[in-house]
Amino acid sequence: MKLVVVKIGGAIIDDDERLQELLHNVAAVGHPCILVHGGGNILSEYSRKLGLEVEMREGRRRTDAATRDLALMVYGGLINKKIVAALQSLGCNAIGMTGADANAISAVRRPEVDGFDFGFVGDISAVNTEVIEVLLRQGLLPVFSPLTHDGNGAMLNTNADTIATSIAVALATHWEVHVLFCFDRVGVSNGERVLNSLSYSEYLELRARGVVTDGMIPKLDAAFAALRNRVARVVIHAPDALAASLEGESIGTELLLTRETA
Amino acid sequence: MKLVVVKIGGAIIDDDERLQELLHNVAAVGHPCILVHGGGNILSEYSRKLGLEVEMREGRRRTDAATRDLALMVYGGLINKKIVAALQSLGCNAIGMTGADANAISAVRRPEVDGFDFGFVGDISAVNTEVIEVLLRQGLLPVFSPLTHDGNGAMLNTNADTIATSIAVALATHWEVHVLFCFDRVGVSNGERVLNSLSYSEYLELRARGVVTDGMIPKLDAAFAALRNRVARVVIHAPDALAASLEGESIGTELLLTRETA
Repeated sequence: MKLVVVKIGGAIIDDDERLQELLHNVAAVGHPCILVHGGGNILSEYSRKLGLEVEMREGRRRTDAATRDLALMVYGGLINKKIVAALQSLGCNAIGMTGADANAISAVRRPEVDGFDFGFVGDISAVNTEVIEVLLRQGLLPVFSPLTHDGNGAMLNTNADTIATSIAVALATHWEVHVLFCFDRVGVSNGERVLNSLSYSEYLELRARGVVTDGMIPKLDAAFAALRNRVARVVIHAPDALAASLEGESIGTELLLTRETA
Repeated sequence: MKLVVVKIGGAIIDDDERLQELLHNVAAVGHPCILVHGGGNILSEYSRKLGLEVEMREGRRRTDAATRDLALMVYGGLINKKIVAALQSLGCNAIGMTGADANAISAVRRPEVDGFDFGFVGDISAVNTEVIEVLLRQGLLPVFSPLTHDGNGAMLNTNADTIATSIAVALATHWEVHVLFCFDRVGVSNGERVLNSLSYSEYLELRARGVVTDGMIPKLDAAFAALRNRVARVVIHAPDALAASLEGESIGTELLLTRETA
């Protein structure tokens, strides 16, 4: 049975009108669906309002206790509940989730890397497929914010791309999982044009050439790992391509483990 | 079958140590349980940090759009997720909820009262018992923040006492519902001593004499209404009395529709 995992982030979350259009398409998916959102720009904005320092490394945020609390507020409260309320108004029975809720996703706090302490950042250790499937069977659409917990009472900031691909891999045992990354751009570019497809070897080449950088690296690493772990399809496209993509249209950039021989 | 609805608010939420102790007792309830939390002090604190005006009337907060967004952040994010993570660490399978999640509680925006516009404040119109019972049957402990939605995409700030009693009344059809208000004081006082029990006529008298005032009025109105609507028991006591109260000990103030004739 088909399951659609939609990841939204970046500019789409900051733009009410585009977000509404996207949620309209999510509400119309017609398959069991899970939505995963980010919201780093809004977190950075509130950090500055409250006088907290914003520090990133390789697209990941250093998350001290105050920033973690703000992440709970912005991701788990503000963005998650606005999305859930909007989906409900579209007749879509959404339920907001973090990894702590129903113990859906547990994580371990990331150790220091080269003397850099990310703080309250979590690397996923387990996805509780049973509870997610209970929600799906009830006709609910889980909306995950990029937060997990360590099982010892601490909430952890966790990359939304990784949450999307981890859920996809965990559910791929029982479902035909399609992961759709709604991206700020229309797809992955080789520096000249947007690619219809991107194989793993092509990705490695683009990365070596410095064409693929920063936050795209963990996103694509996670996406290719998902394909190696039974996920049926991973596509990266613009938010307004969601409806067409769901109808099977070739749009944006489809990731492939091996180069297609046409 | 017995169902315990625990409401926590006020000072207990601001005091990490007392909150941990209370959650320890909630995790040990041994019956299906629903937790409802407030958190107005922390909301007021963040309002001041962000330069938003705090204005109350009869214990209710004027909630303009910026304050409503902050309520989503503080109630739905910060407090709710910290409680859920803490309960998970105690082996209690909590799931955080607002009224929008799974369409659990819908509300209508409160009309102006004597020219006073409360803003994004919701009066509850429906509790979706079906979805709450699904969660309970899964062994989950729903943790409700004081937020509802209007079904048209707007989240609404809603009094936590009212959420607790509305859930209690809605579930009283199928369950023997006990509502335990964990209160800043040890119970309801008649001005001289804490009462073991309080009948509706005694309450009206204390209110007329100005002994019961402010936020206690809507709390007690809602509590007596719950008793009139098949809720089995409503008790108001200190947070540290929870365990004893659950074991049936007479502690704090039990509300009664009619005066007991001993």
